[in-house]
Amino acid sequence: MSAPSLRIGLAGLGVVGATLAKRLLSGAVSGAVLTAVSARDANRDRGIDLSGLEFVADATTLAQSDNVDVVVELIGGSNGAALDLVRAAVAAGKPVITANKAMLAEHADELSLATTPISYEAAIAGGIPIVKTLREGLVGNNILALGGILNGTCNYILTRMEEAGLSFDDALAEAQAAGFAEADPTLDISGADAAQKLILLGALAFDVRPDINKWSVLGIEHITARDIALAQEFSYVIRLVAIASCRDNQIYMQVAPMLVRQGSALAQIKRETNAVFIEAEPVGRLILQGAGAGGGATASAVLADIADMVAGRGRSLFAHPTKDMRESPADGVMSAPDRMWYLRLMLTNKAGSIAQITQILAENGVSVKEVVQRSQHGDDNRLPIGFITDKASAQAIMQVGAALQARDDICSDIVHLPLYDDD
Amino acid sequence: MSAPSLRIGLAGLGVVGATLAKRLLSGAVSGAVLTAVSARDANRDRGIDLSGLEFVADATTLAQSDNVDVVVELIGGSNGAALDLVRAAVAAGKPVITANKAMLAEHADELSLATTPISYEAAIAGGIPIVKTLREGLVGNNILALGGILNGTCNYILTRMEEAGLSFDDALAEAQAAGFAEADPTLDISGADAAQKLILLGALAFDVRPDINKWSVLGIEHITARDIALAQEFSYVIRLVAIASCRDNQIYMQVAPMLVRQGSALAQIKRETNAVFIEAEPVGRLILQGAGAGGGATASAVLADIADMVAGRGRSLFAHPTKDMRESPADGVMSAPDRMWYLRLMLTNKAGSIAQITQILAENGVSVKEVVQRSQHGDDNRLPIGFITDKASAQAIMQVGAALQARDDICSDIVHLPLYDDD
Repeated sequence: MSAPSLRIGLAGLGVVGATLAKRLLSGAVSGAVLTAVSARDANRDRGIDLSGLEFVADATTLAQSDNVDVVVELIGGSNGAALDLVRAAVAAGKPVITANKAMLAEHADELSLATTPISYEAAIAGGIPIVKTLREGLVGNNILALGGILNGTCNYILTRMEEAGLSFDDALAEAQAAGFAEADPTLDISGADAAQKLILLGALAFDVRPDINKWSVLGIEHITARDIALAQEFSYVIRLVAIASCRDNQIYMQVAPMLVRQGSALAQIKRETNAVFIEAEPVGRLILQGAGAGGGATASAVLADIADMVAGRGRSLFAHPTKDMRESPADGVMSAPDRMWYLRLMLTNKAGSIAQITQILAENGVSVKEVVQRSQHGDDNRLPIGFITDKASAQAIMQVGAALQARDDICSDIVHLPLYDDD
Repeated sequence: MSAPSLRIGLAGLGVVGATLAKRLLSGAVSGAVLTAVSARDANRDRGIDLSGLEFVADATTLAQSDNVDVVVELIGGSNGAALDLVRAAVAAGKPVITANKAMLAEHADELSLATTPISYEAAIAGGIPIVKTLREGLVGNNILALGGILNGTCNYILTRMEEAGLSFDDALAEAQAAGFAEADPTLDISGADAAQKLILLGALAFDVRPDINKWSVLGIEHITARDIALAQEFSYVIRLVAIASCRDNQIYMQVAPMLVRQGSALAQIKRETNAVFIEAEPVGRLILQGAGAGGGATASAVLADIADMVAGRGRSLFAHPTKDMRESPADGVMSAPDRMWYLRLMLTNKAGSIAQITQILAENGVSVKEVVQRSQHGDDNRLPIGFITDKASAQAIMQVGAALQARDDICSDIVHLPLYDDD
C-alpha cells in the first residue's frame, strides 16, 4: 500500500493559482492531491472544474481544515490575508508553500522561527530553480557572489526602450498593456521587488539576516532614452542588476541600474526573462535563465515545492532563525566595491564647459576612460555628454556628482550608474 | 544524537577525485565523511593528506570494505575497472555515484536494474545541476525538448576557430595544450560524448531507453575555417548542438554541428562552457550554463549527489528499468524535423556552374534563401559558395548532396549543416 496523498489547500486563484490547480487536478505531482481552495470569488469561470473541492471564503480557514496537510499561499501582499494564513498554518503545524517574496523579506525574523517547513522556490526568479540549486545543487560549494536580473517588469521596460527607442513612460505603458507591469508599478520599478529577492538569496547563500534597509536600492524610474542611447555608444546596455557578494568575509548587496557590456550574458537577457548568476568554489560560474514571472513559471516552482513536501524534504525558511544569522554591516550602503562608472550630464553649450567638468573629475581622483558627446537628445542650450570612468569608489562619484550639481552654470541633470563587471 | 556519517569510498584520484577528496576532508558535506580511496599510484603527491584513510589498490575492494557505505566512481572508461566496481557495489547493496556517462550509456540496460541508487549529476554537463533540475525542479512539468552544448572540448575548438581564425587542427592542438582535449580526442570530436549525455537526458525527460545507434550523431572533425567564416557572413556561428525532443508524441534525438544565430543564447556559449536548454510546459524555456568539465565543476556535482545520499534521496538510474521504457523508433535517424540548412561546396570556376547547382536544388524541392560566394578560402580553380535554404527535410538535403556529388565537373567538397532553430 502506498502512503496516503498529501492534501493541498490552495489560497489564491489568480493566473498562477489557476494554472497550478489545473496541473494538480491532472495529477502532475504524484502523491499530492488538491483538496481545498480559497479565492475572493467562488463563482468566476477559471476554466477549471473545482467541484469536489472544499471551497472556503476566508483563506485562514484552510489552515484549520481537516482536509488540508499543506497550505499554498498565492494571495500576495506582505501583510493582510497572506500573512494571516501563513501564521495560522504554522500555528496548526502545517507546512507552507508561498511565492510571496514581499512577505518573506518583511517578516523573515518571525517566519524563520516557524517550526513547520516554509518553501518558496516561486518567490525568487519564478521558474528558475534557484533555491533548489543553492541549497542542494551547490551544497558543497563556497558561494562567492550571486544575483542577476531578478525583476521581469524592469527588464521588459529597459529592453523595450533599447529595442524600440521608447521613452520610459511609453515602455511602462506597453509593459502594463502586455501584462508585465501592475497598474501601480512602484514595487517593481523602484527596485524593491528585486531587493526583496536579493536579500532572500543573501540569506540562503551567506546566512545574512535579511535587512533591506542596510543596502543601496535604486530603481529604473530615472532611466531615459538618452541614457539608453548613450550607453549603446559605449557598447553597453542598461539592466537592473542585483548583486550579493561575500569576498574576504565582507558581505555586500546592491540593486541598481547598471551598464552591462553588449554581448555579455546579462545583456542577452531580454524582455520579461530573468537570469541568476552564481559564482562559487569549486563549481565556477553558473547562469540560470528563464521566465521570472507569469502563471506557468510560478506554478512550475510551486509544483516542485509540493513534490519536495511529498518526499518529506520541506525545509525551514533559512538554515537558522534570523537571530542566529550574520548581521548586515551598519555601513552596508557605503561599503560598495570600487567600480567603473557611467556619468552623464547635460552640458551647457558654452566654451570651456568640458574643461571645467573634467577638472572637477580630476580633483576628485576620478579619471576618464571614454567620452561621447552628441547633439542628438539635446535641447535648446544643452547637449548630453557621457563619460566612462576608471574604477572609483561610490563616495568619489557622489562627491563628483555634488560638485557638478553646484555648477549649474556649466551643467545640469546629472546621472551616474555603475558598470557591471562580470569578469 | 545525530545519525552516523555516511562513509564515502572514492575510486580515482585524478583532478576531479583530488578536488573532491579535498572538499570532503574539509567537511564540505555535513553528514558525509571520506573513509577510503583507491588510485593507481598510492604515493603520488596530490596536495592532500590521505593519512587516516583506507587505501586500496584494487578499486572493487572499496565495494566490499566495511568502512564504506557509498562508492564514488571516478575511474572512467565504459568497461574495465569502473564497471567492475559499480557491479561490485550494486552486488554489495551499496549506492553508487559516478561521473561516467560512457558507462551509463553503454550499460544502461544492466544498470537500470540495480537495486541500489545510482547518481550521476556529474555525468551530464559537469557543474550544471541538470539531473536535479529535470527530476526535481521541473517535476510537475511536461518536457517538450532539451539539449544544448554538452561537450566542452568541441565548443572550445569551434569558438577558437571562430575567434582566432584557427584551422581545426590548430584549434585541437591548442585545446590539448590547454587541457581541454585528450591526447586521443576521438570520443569528444566525433560527437559520441555529447550523444552519450543526450541519451541519458532523453531517458530522464522522455522515458526513452538509451540506444545511441538509433540516432544521427555527427562530430566536428570536418568543420573547416572556411565554413566558420562563411557562417559568419550569414550571421551565424557553428556549435555542436545536441537536441532531444518529444512533439506530438514523436521522440527525436540528434547531435550535429549546427549553425546557431549570432547573438542567440547558444552562440554566446564560448570555450569550454556548456549550456543546457529545456522547453517545458508550464515553465517555458530555461537555459542553464556553466563549466561542463574540469575538477571543480565535476566535484561540485558529485558533492551534491553525496548530500542527496545523506538525505536518503538517492534514486535508481531511471524511473524504470530500460525494458519498461519507451523504445526509440527504428527509423529514428530519418525522422528529423524539417530544418533550414547551410550548404557549402567548392564551385568549379567556369561559366554556368551556379545555374546548374541551383537547378539541382530546385529539382529536389529545396529553395534558396541566401547565397554568399567569396574568393577568400578558395584554391586554384575552385571558389567556396554557401547557401542558406528554406526549411527542407534531411532526406531532401541528402538527395541534393548525392546529386551534387555526381557532378564533379561543376563542384566538389560538399558540406551540409542544419540551422538550429531556437524560437
